[in-house]
Amino acid sequence: MRCAILGGAGFLGRHIGRAMASEGAEVWSVDRSLSAAGSAPWLAGEVQADCFDLPSWWDVVGGADVIVHLASSTVPATASEDPIQDVQTNLVGTLRLLQELRKKAVRPRLLFASSGGAVYGRPQYVPLCEAHPTMPMGAYGATKLAIEHHLRIEEAQHGLPCRILRLSNPYGEWQQPHGVQGVIAVFAHRALNAQPLDVWGDGSVVRDFVYAADVGYAFAAAARHEGETRIFNIGGGAGHSVNDIVHTLEQLLGHAVERRVFPARPFDPPVNVLDIQRAQNELFWKPTMAFEDGVAKSVEWLRTVA
Amino acid sequence: MRCAILGGAGFLGRHIGRAMASEGAEVWSVDRSLSAAGSAPWLAGEVQADCFDLPSWWDVVGGADVIVHLASSTVPATASEDPIQDVQTNLVGTLRLLQELRKKAVRPRLLFASSGGAVYGRPQYVPLCEAHPTMPMGAYGATKLAIEHHLRIEEAQHGLPCRILRLSNPYGEWQQPHGVQGVIAVFAHRALNAQPLDVWGDGSVVRDFVYAADVGYAFAAAARHEGETRIFNIGGGAGHSVNDIVHTLEQLLGHAVERRVFPARPFDPPVNVLDIQRAQNELFWKPTMAFEDGVAKSVEWLRTVA
Repeated sequence: MRCAILGGAGFLGRHIGRAMASEGAEVWSVDRSLSAAGSAPWLAGEVQADCFDLPSWWDVVGGADVIVHLASSTVPATASEDPIQDVQTNLVGTLRLLQELRKKAVRPRLLFASSGGAVYGRPQYVPLCEAHPTMPMGAYGATKLAIEHHLRIEEAQHGLPCRILRLSNPYGEWQQPHGVQGVIAVFAHRALNAQPLDVWGDGSVVRDFVYAADVGYAFAAAARHEGETRIFNIGGGAGHSVNDIVHTLEQLLGHAVERRVFPARPFDPPVNVLDIQRAQNELFWKPTMAFEDGVAKSVEWLRTVA
Repeated sequence: MRCAILGGAGFLGRHIGRAMASEGAEVWSVDRSLSAAGSAPWLAGEVQADCFDLPSWWDVVGGADVIVHLASSTVPATASEDPIQDVQTNLVGTLRLLQELRKKAVRPRLLFASSGGAVYGRPQYVPLCEAHPTMPMGAYGATKLAIEHHLRIEEAQHGLPCRILRLSNPYGEWQQPHGVQGVIAVFAHRALNAQPLDVWGDGSVVRDFVYAADVGYAFAAAARHEGETRIFNIGGGAGHSVNDIVHTLEQLLGHAVERRVFPARPFDPPVNVLDIQRAQNELFWKPTMAFEDGVAKSVEWLRTVA
């Protein structure tokens, strides 16, 4: 099985590539950037290209049986700042990909990384199962959801098989600590550098964190999946509060960490956790990394790049 | 109250304009086309403009308290043929409108005509209430739904009040009989001209038809609505089969009408009817036109333009 990972040089792309290669796939990265030399020995090759421009990479890779679609030009904050740009690049870009794929005699399977934190909107109950209403509260989630719909429609009308993985918050090695996403990497990096951690409210807000290598195995399972189901939640299986993260870091570092406390943000739902029963039942997948061990992996990796 | 109707010269725009004017609003049409001279005496004025280009019409109208957004460059078939074009004009166009409206000191209320036939997808039960899952099965519905989400998000983040009306299949005077939509107008026109009616399957497929003037009064009610609810189904309150339409026409014309029968289309859900209880309870609106009388109105009008 040949697999092209769109966004394969990034944090999540590396984990997914490694997981799929470990299960025997020939894995290519397609990304605007190349991996640092020698840093991704599991790859069969890399193409530096615009992921959404299929003709620029398809023949170089030699075609693909599976496309893992992680390509995104935005994060929630930048999508809200410029929703038109978000639609133009990510939604229209994906539609351009689909249009090119219609021309292929044999259609690859497309695995799409959607966002379990963004497409559902404010939880009506937790844990959120896949049948929960989808009422995104930001442009980022609206675009992820629109892409999901177009993928389902493309399969029904043009036979391109798809699987949609709604991820909670991935964390682990290779997650950059300087971004606006990834609280575990940000906190771990700041704690390692004796900088205070910014906490909104009392730190009781609970989120779903999933170790990125576990996400990689979920994609590998989705590549093999034979059933009728198309949408799967992929999460850590339990929630962790902001205070849990801080305590875990304090235990790993062996000392207290300073916090800077800001007022609670009223738009933050108090709890957001995904129900992953469907993925367990149908993909035969579940996360295997304990939270404390996963955070330790993040800290170890950040020490090597500090 | 000054009301700008984007798409005000079209079939539905005329009905909505007339209804809102009858309730005292100053109604302007904004449309690529002008109404035929003297044909829309209820209008305070018309602007021939690109609806999505707010600066080209806002000052001409003198600003608006209510914007009725009917502007669309596609129908389901054309959206499926070119989903990128559908997204570029209708979704991006709406986002451009929203961006311009953020600059206004006082935000008008935006009433959006969504599609109850397209946003839900295959009915899991009928009648479909507003909480039914939204799984559109075509690009047209995916775009309508994405616009809905962005309107909700715009209200939450930037205070632009909105109401979303998910219409079933409007019919009535001014509906053109040469399009790919509007089975009642198409059938009535063909029956009047002694042409056979194309029926797929046994004619038992049931759809929801709502008389367009009733839709007009629903928009007028949504313009006044003060509650927290944002999404309303607007339908005829009951389903009618394709055979019902044919029988009604035969009764009105006083003679049998020839049918051309084609194989049933497996993707046609057998029944699609909207639950309109919420609109009755919260907008204090319900359709008033009996089906037979509404079809008679369509036929009468088609006779005048035949």
